[in-house]
Amino acid sequence: MSKVGLPALLVTHLPDLRYLSGFTGSSAALAVTRRAARLFTDGRYTIQAADEVAAAGVEIISNSPSVSALQWLAAQSTVTAVGFDPAHTTVADLDRLRTALPYRLRRAFLVALPSPLVEPLRLVKDEEELAVISEAARLGCRLFDGIIYYIRPGLREFDVVAELEHQARLLGAEGMSFETIAASGVRSALPHGRATEARLPRRGFLTLDFGVILKGYCSDMTRTVYLGKPKAEERRVYAAVLEAQEAALASVAAGASCGDVDGAARGVLRREGLAEAFSHSTGHGVGLEIHEPPRIGSGQKTRLQTGMVVTVEPGAYLAGRFGVRIEDMVVVTRIGGQVLTLSPKTLIEL
Amino acid sequence: MSKVGLPALLVTHLPDLRYLSGFTGSSAALAVTRRAARLFTDGRYTIQAADEVAAAGVEIISNSPSVSALQWLAAQSTVTAVGFDPAHTTVADLDRLRTALPYRLRRAFLVALPSPLVEPLRLVKDEEELAVISEAARLGCRLFDGIIYYIRPGLREFDVVAELEHQARLLGAEGMSFETIAASGVRSALPHGRATEARLPRRGFLTLDFGVILKGYCSDMTRTVYLGKPKAEERRVYAAVLEAQEAALASVAAGASCGDVDGAARGVLRREGLAEAFSHSTGHGVGLEIHEPPRIGSGQKTRLQTGMVVTVEPGAYLAGRFGVRIEDMVVVTRIGGQVLTLSPKTLIEL
Repeated sequence: MSKVGLPALLVTHLPDLRYLSGFTGSSAALAVTRRAARLFTDGRYTIQAADEVAAAGVEIISNSPSVSALQWLAAQSTVTAVGFDPAHTTVADLDRLRTALPYRLRRAFLVALPSPLVEPLRLVKDEEELAVISEAARLGCRLFDGIIYYIRPGLREFDVVAELEHQARLLGAEGMSFETIAASGVRSALPHGRATEARLPRRGFLTLDFGVILKGYCSDMTRTVYLGKPKAEERRVYAAVLEAQEAALASVAAGASCGDVDGAARGVLRREGLAEAFSHSTGHGVGLEIHEPPRIGSGQKTRLQTGMVVTVEPGAYLAGRFGVRIEDMVVVTRIGGQVLTLSPKTLIEL
Repeated sequence: MSKVGLPALLVTHLPDLRYLSGFTGSSAALAVTRRAARLFTDGRYTIQAADEVAAAGVEIISNSPSVSALQWLAAQSTVTAVGFDPAHTTVADLDRLRTALPYRLRRAFLVALPSPLVEPLRLVKDEEELAVISEAARLGCRLFDGIIYYIRPGLREFDVVAELEHQARLLGAEGMSFETIAASGVRSALPHGRATEARLPRRGFLTLDFGVILKGYCSDMTRTVYLGKPKAEERRVYAAVLEAQEAALASVAAGASCGDVDGAARGVLRREGLAEAFSHSTGHGVGLEIHEPPRIGSGQKTRLQTGMVVTVEPGAYLAGRFGVRIEDMVVVTRIGGQVLTLSPKTLIEL
């Protein structure tokens, strides 16, 4: 706050708010001044907020949390302006907040932060966060290592998802970090193929992309397995994607640019004539949200820092035929990258 | 569009976009003029967009979908202004969109819609939507009717969630419409109690609040059951909540105000000395999103219309002791309300 020269902050983005206060409910706003912090939430969370929030006062209100937080700030004599996050405040919200202010404050009291304040704090994970993320990643691996004994031709894609998510719950996951992807046969060519009632083929790929939530933190992994005996072309594409993925992993290091990591994967696939088949970026940060900065994409100049956690997930998709994607989570360390996703990556034939 | 006098519309809120175009992917923007519509999405969705979208042209782009859509609109000679949805456009997005326009268009080309355009269309469900929503609600009931044979003292709350969600998947749900709530014993006093490793008690309430997604549409239901033999006070509170819920259901009718429905539930609980214990509003609309307008809350003047689908879910929460909530989905019809959630509501003792 001193850095941006603002006496106060209105935090409404829930992952930021959780990061700062510990509160895990679904509706709240946090008012922060240089001397105090106050969390506003509604009657559903009276008990939970008292349990979870130590560093801020808690106020239970029945109208909008963000309006209440703003009005509380406006009533402090030391607060002459309040920073808000333009990336997580809608045009309509801003209008509503302004209207709730006394007339003389409407023009200049609310100031859009020129760059995110809390997100950069979240970008680099501390030891405690890394321990939880690593535990989440390991739970993902256990799920994959188990599910391969369940997969067989004739099952529906959503049977596989049901079994995987059931095991996730039994092993203590709070939930899945996004909608589990199970795309088999020709559907493996859909990078974001939702599970359908399609039956697993006797011969063909199955891509599984999933993650769990543990203590609020997300995991994310993808493996592509083969049912039956792969054809030469299928083996070739799988090997190319794996080589691309390992090249990108090898390029992860504190100081490397995100564009370089993306380029490492893309270079291998280009050499294999698969440049067009790799239609998305190479990865993204993971933490309290499944998609966080940095974005590992073409031309991205952001530099990796020790303690960032990112995914590395190149793929190749041949429309109407098949597709392959392989994804690990990796922590950026001083000497490179530490892979958190330890399930096998050599092509598994089931 | 004629109604608001605008020649074009930029649709970025995904449920709205799905409603208008049929596209179910996770990243897209839709540009609509009086003569044409064009959907912009990225390479991950090339095949899926071609399959799903009939009424609009599809363009695969590698930069931001909303910027591409806006630039396409700006290049049309007939388009002199574009409406955007201020409730689903962040302050930062608007800034980015403006910056992408030629200088002469930055000031006045983008116009905040004075009221939502697509949301009101979604408010009243057509026959086809009602059929899907009713199917989703029935699937929810089947899950509840089955889970009561599984529930027993000593299970962890998340075992119950695991079993329920597993069955949901096996019965064809695309996913859960929100994080399943299972709150047992003293935790039933948390209106939004996430499932934990807490063990179901020999004697106490268990509140289950959950919903499934079927063909994109959400269901939502809550039942509170009792393990063991309830005490007189527990029976009394359960009966009061049930009476409040049935009173609110009975007040549902085309033309009734949302505040009246809320008042019907609140009146019963007040009479029973439980006004303070009912700390949230009575219900909300459901459809492509789990929370849609209208809000069934105190003083809400919105009038119910035939074809709206809302939840009715009063509760009573006694901190440190126990809580009860009962929730049905109901379609507003010409002659009242048709309840879609048909699982029993008399107190089940397990």
